Amino acid sequence: MLTVLTVKEAQERIIASLNDTRTEKENIPVTDSLGRVTAREIVATEAVPPFARATMDGFAVRSSDTFGASESIPSLLTLKGHILMGKEPPGSLGTGEAMSIPTGGMLPPGSDSVVMLEYCEVLGNQVAVYRPAAPLENIVREGEDFQEGSLVLPAGHMIRFQDIGILSALGIMELEVYARPRVGIFSTGDEIVSPSEQPKPGQIRDINGFALSAQVLESGGEPQYCGIIADEKEGLKRGLLTSLERYDIVLISGGSSVGARDVAVEAINELPGGEVLFHGVSMKPGKPFIFGLSGGKPIFGLSGNPVSAMFSFILFVRPALRLMQGLSAFPAFSPYVEAFLDTNLSSPGGREDYVRVTLHEGPSTSGKEAPLRARPVFGGSSLLSTMVKGDGYFVIPRDVEGMLEGSKIKVFLF
Amino acid sequence: MLTVLTVKEAQERIIASLNDTRTEKENIPVTDSLGRVTAREIVATEAVPPFARATMDGFAVRSSDTFGASESIPSLLTLKGHILMGKEPPGSLGTGEAMSIPTGGMLPPGSDSVVMLEYCEVLGNQVAVYRPAAPLENIVREGEDFQEGSLVLPAGHMIRFQDIGILSALGIMELEVYARPRVGIFSTGDEIVSPSEQPKPGQIRDINGFALSAQVLESGGEPQYCGIIADEKEGLKRGLLTSLERYDIVLISGGSSVGARDVAVEAINELPGGEVLFHGVSMKPGKPFIFGLSGGKPIFGLSGNPVSAMFSFILFVRPALRLMQGLSAFPAFSPYVEAFLDTNLSSPGGREDYVRVTLHEGPSTSGKEAPLRARPVFGGSSLLSTMVKGDGYFVIPRDVEGMLEGSKIKVFLF
Repeated sequence: MLTVLTVKEAQERIIASLNDTRTEKENIPVTDSLGRVTAREIVATEAVPPFARATMDGFAVRSSDTFGASESIPSLLTLKGHILMGKEPPGSLGTGEAMSIPTGGMLPPGSDSVVMLEYCEVLGNQVAVYRPAAPLENIVREGEDFQEGSLVLPAGHMIRFQDIGILSALGIMELEVYARPRVGIFSTGDEIVSPSEQPKPGQIRDINGFALSAQVLESGGEPQYCGIIADEKEGLKRGLLTSLERYDIVLISGGSSVGARDVAVEAINELPGGEVLFHGVSMKPGKPFIFGLSGGKPIFGLSGNPVSAMFSFILFVRPALRLMQGLSAFPAFSPYVEAFLDTNLSSPGGREDYVRVTLHEGPSTSGKEAPLRARPVFGGSSLLSTMVKGDGYFVIPRDVEGMLEGSKIKVFLF
Repeated sequence: MLTVLTVKEAQERIIASLNDTRTEKENIPVTDSLGRVTAREIVATEAVPPFARATMDGFAVRSSDTFGASESIPSLLTLKGHILMGKEPPGSLGTGEAMSIPTGGMLPPGSDSVVMLEYCEVLGNQVAVYRPAAPLENIVREGEDFQEGSLVLPAGHMIRFQDIGILSALGIMELEVYARPRVGIFSTGDEIVSPSEQPKPGQIRDINGFALSAQVLESGGEPQYCGIIADEKEGLKRGLLTSLERYDIVLISGGSSVGARDVAVEAINELPGGEVLFHGVSMKPGKPFIFGLSGGKPIFGLSGNPVSAMFSFILFVRPALRLMQGLSAFPAFSPYVEAFLDTNLSSPGGREDYVRVTLHEGPSTSGKEAPLRARPVFGGSSLLSTMVKGDGYFVIPRDVEGMLEGSKIKVFLF
C-alpha cells in the first residue's frame, strides 16, 4: 500500500474512489453561470431562430420568379409591401411579388430567399431584380441554429460565453448546475505562522493556504482557508473531523519531515472510516503526496514545499474537483505552446519531472514566425521563485532520462 | 475614414487611441487578487526564505568536516543538540560538530550543509557520517528564493496562484491593482426583446447582452447590462451619454441593417467630443464593427449577429480591456492545440476568416500519440450553433485563398 505510484496510477486510484461523488445540484440564474457545469442536458424548447430571417438588406422573393434574371433582362416583380424590423410581414407573398426587408427581418410566407438591395431597383410599384436568387439565399431558416427538441448542451458541460448566448435566445433564465465543491484548506507545521504575522527566528509564513485557495478558485471550487494546525496527531484529527463535516474535500499541506508525514498518515487512518489509499508518487516536485478517504470524502495531503503542493494540486486535486462538479476528470483538449528546449537537461528516469520554464523568442528565420525557445528556470524544486519567474512547465516522462537542447516540447502555461 | 481596415490596422488604431487610458488604482486584499493586475512593482521587503533551511531530514554539519567520509571510514562528529521545527537552533555549530535537523528546520550559524539521515548513525553523543556533504547540499540559503530588495513581480502583471504564494511569504496582505474596467452593454434593434420575454412574431430575444457580459467578465472587466434601445438616433444618443458618465467603456450591439448602422455612426459622431474613428474590418465574421470615442472613452459598435459580435469582442474589445487594466494589449503567449484540417476550405482572400471547428482524435499511428483532426462546424457565419458546437477556432490569413485538407493549423480553444 505504501509503494510509490506513477502519476497515472495515482490519478486512476483517485478517480476510481470518487466514482459517483458529485456535489448537490442547484438552480442559478443564467447571468451567474459562466464556468459552471450543467447538471442536466438542455434541449431547445423552441426553434432558434423562431422564424426565417433575412441576413441581408434587400427584397424577399420567390427564387423561381428570379431565375434567368440578368442586367439586361431583369425580372419585374410587384412591390407588395415593406417588412419592418420586429414586425410580422404585411401578408404573404404570391407569385411575381416582392417585399422590401431589412437584415434580421421576418420572411413572409411564400418567400424563400432575399435578393440583395444592390441587385434591385424600385420602379414605382415594381421591383426590377437584376440577378437570380437561389432558394434559401441570404436567409436563415426557422430552426437552422437549433430545431425545437434538439440537444443544445449536454449534461456535464462547462458553460462558456456562447452557451450563455444560446440560453438567452431560448429564454432560459435559470439552469440546474452542480454546486461548487467546498474545499477546506489547512496548513500544518510547527514552523508555520499566518501570512499576517511577523515570524520569529525559525518560523516562516504560510504560503500554501492562500496559494491553494487560489488554485481551488481557478478549478471551480469554493475555498475556505481554515488556518494552521501543529504537527500533532490529536489536533490534526480534530481539525480533519470538523472540516469533513463542513466541506466536500479537505486539503492539508505541510509536514514535510518524515515524522510529520507519519503523523498525517496515522491521523487519517484513525478517522471514522478513515483510510490512506496511497502515499508517494514518482514525480518531482510532488513526491510526498497522501490520498485518503473518510466517510467517502477525499483528503489530500500535500507537501509543505509550495512548489510540490502546487503540482500535486494540478495533477490530483484539480481532476477530483472537476469530477465532483460533473465534468470529466481531464479536459478533452489542453492547450499549450510549442517551443524548443534551449539547453540539455538530465532526469534520473523512473519519475516524471515537471520542469518550470520561461519562454523566449528565438532567432527569426527568413521572415517566418520565430520559433519559441524554452529555458528552464534556474533553482531547486523547493524554490517558489521557479514558479513565480516561470511562464509555464513541461513534462519529462518517466521513461526518459534526459532531453537534448533543441528538443521540441509542449509548454503548458501557468 | 470609412475604408475597411485589416484586423491589425483596426487593433493598432484602438491601441493608439487608448494610449495612456488606465483605470483607477485601488488596494485589495491578497486573497481577492487572483487575476487582478499589479499597479506597481512588488519588491521583496525581506529575504525569502528569511533564514537557511534544511530540505532533508538529517544533520546540520560543516561540509569540510565530512570531506573524505565513507562507509568504511565515517567522519565522527559531536552531537551538539537538536534543532526543532519553528525554533531557533540551540547555539551555533563549531568544527567537528553536528545537530539533528528536520526538513524545513533553521540551520545553525557555522553550518553550511545537511547530511541525510540515512547516511548517518547516532552513537551516544556522536554522529557517524558515512558520506561527504558538499557545501550548500540539502539546504536552501537565506534569500535563495528572493533576496531582500529584489523584484518579485513587475507592475502590469496579472496575479497567478503562485504569485499569491510569494505575496503570502512576504506578509503582503494588501496590494495595489488597477480597478476592473466598468463596461456598459446595450443591445439595439427594433426586433429585440429581453431574454426573459416571450417574443411576438418578427421579434427575437436579445442574445448579445448576456453573452457579451460573460466575455467582459472573462476579460477582467465588470459588465453592466443596460438593456435594449430602439434603432433611433436620439434615444441612442441619450443612452450613450448616460452610460458614458457611469462606465469606462460602452458596448452597443445590433443595428445590422445599413440604416441602423448609419444611425449608430451618426449618434456617436454627434456626442460631445464624439467621433467614429473607423467602421468595417476585413474579417468574417465581424466585418460590421464601429470604433468611436467620446471624451476619450471608447465606444464599440458590434454587429447584431452574435457570432460576429463575439469575434469583434475577442479581437478588439478584449485588447482594450487588457490595456485599461494595466496589461499589454495582447498576452505574450497564446496557448493553442495543433491539429490537421480534415477538409479542403476555400476563402475569398483579402479578409481574415475565423473558422469554428470541432476537434477529433485522428487514427493512431504505430502507438504514437494520435494527431488531432479539426473539422469546420457546418453552418453559415450568422449561426450561433457554430460557436456552441465548436471547440475552438482557427484563422485563415488575409493573403490565403483556401486551405487544403491535412494542413497543420493552430486551434484556439473557446
